[in-house]
Amino acid sequence: MAEHFAIELPPFQRGIHLITNHVRKDLPLNGDGVLHLFIQHTSAALTINENADPDVRHDMELMMDRIVPENQQGLLHTYEGPDDMPAHTKSSLFGSSVSIPFSEGNLLLGTWQGIYLCEFRNSAGRRRMIATVMR
Amino acid sequence: MAEHFAIELPPFQRGIHLITNHVRKDLPLNGDGVLHLFIQHTSAALTINENADPDVRHDMELMMDRIVPENQQGLLHTYEGPDDMPAHTKSSLFGSSVSIPFSEGNLLLGTWQGIYLCEFRNSAGRRRMIATVMR
Amino acid sequence: MAEHFAIELPPFQRGIHLITNHVRKDLPLNGDGVLHLFIQHTSAALTINENADPDVRHDMELMMDRIVPENQQGLLHTYEGPDDMPAHTKSSLFGSSVSIPFSEGNLLLGTWQGIYLCEFRNSAGRRRMIATVMR
Repeated sequence: MAEHFAIELPPFQRGIHLITNHVRKDLPLNGDGVLHLFIQHTSAALTINENADPDVRHDMELMMDRIVPENQQGLLHTYEGPDDMPAHTKSSLFGSSVSIPFSEGNLLLGTWQGIYLCEFRNSAGRRRMIATVMR
Repeated sequence: MAEHFAIELPPFQRGIHLITNHVRKDLPLNGDGVLHLFIQHTSAALTINENADPDVRHDMELMMDRIVPENQQGLLHTYEGPDDMPAHTKSSLFGSSVSIPFSEGNLLLGTWQGIYLCEFRNSAGRRRMIATVMR
Repeated sequence: MAEHFAIELPPFQRGIHLITNHVRKDLPLNGDGVLHLFIQHTSAALTINENADPDVRHDMELMMDRIVPENQQGLLHTYEGPDDMPAHTKSSLFGSSVSIPFSEGNLLLGTWQGIYLCEFRNSAGRRRMIATVMR
C-alpha cells in the first residue's frame, strides 16, 4: 500500500541542508516499509549523508562546484544564468529521490545519516516534494 | 502489490534522450503508487531532468564527458573501446533506476521534469528496461 | 508488503567489490517485487555495474579518485583523514541504495549486471545494510 504526502520546503540558500526532521515530522511511519522522497524540480536534489558536522555540507558543495564548474566553454543552455546548467547536472549526479526503510515509527538510518536537500541554484524559491509511504 | 512490465527501447545515438512518453504510454498507473524503472545494462543510465529545452540534454552530455574523460592513463579495461569504461562510470554516477510517484493515471513529475535515457556508448543496440508498478 | 532483513558485510579493502551473491543468498525473492538495499553508512555506497571483468572495478575506483581528489584546498572537514571527505562526496554521487526488480526467486538483473559495494575509506570496518523485500 502506497500513500502520498505533499511536502513543501521553504526557500533555502544555495548549499546543502539537513532536512531529516522537517521531512519525518508528519509522516505515519508505523509498521514496516520504505519511505520514498521525490523532489519535483530539476536543479535541486536529495541525497543521504553525514548528519553531524556542518563542515561536511560545506565541503560537499565545494567539491560539487569543482566537479561541475560554471562558465564552461561550449554550453548552449546559458540564458538562465551560469548556475543553471551546472545545477541540472549536479541534480542528476545526486538524484531526484531517496528511499529509506522504516520500522515502527523510525527511519532505519545509520547513526550518522541524515537527509540532505541540495539547493544548486543561487536564488531558488520553495521546493515541492512528494513523500510516499510504502508498506 | 508489484507488477512488472518489460520495455524495450529502440537503439539511440550516444547522448541523452527524453523517453517520458515512450515509458508511460502502456503502463497502468491507476490508484496511488510508485513507478520503478530499471535498465538492465551497465553502460546506459536513467535519470530525471529538464523536459523542455533540448540544449539541456546537449550540455549535460558535454559536462559528463568532461567529468569522466576518455583515454585516461592507467585504465585496464580498454578492449571494448575508449567510450566503454567512461560509460560504466557515468552509469553508476547517474544510476540504473529511477522511481517516480504516480496517482490516478499520472506520474507526479514536476512541471519541468522528464525521464532521460542516457546512452553512453558510441554504438549501442536496443536497451531493455523493467518497469514495476508498485501500489 | 515490505519485509526487512539486516545484512552485515565483512570489512572490505578500499575499492569496489561485487556482492551480488552475498546479498541474495538468504533473501526470500518468491513472487514479484522490488528488492531495496540500503547501506547505513555515509562513506560507502551501493551501485549496479559490470559483473564480469574485475578490471572494471579497478578502473571505476581510479576514475572516482580523479573525479573527487583528496587533499583539495579549502576543505574544512579534514580531521578524519584525507580519504574521509572524498568518501562522503563519492557516496552521494553513487548513492546509498539500489533497488532491483525480482521475480520467482530471481533478481531481474541484466546479463552483465552485479551489485557493487563501494568502500571509499582506507580502513573501514563491517558495513550494515537493510534489505527490504517489497511485493
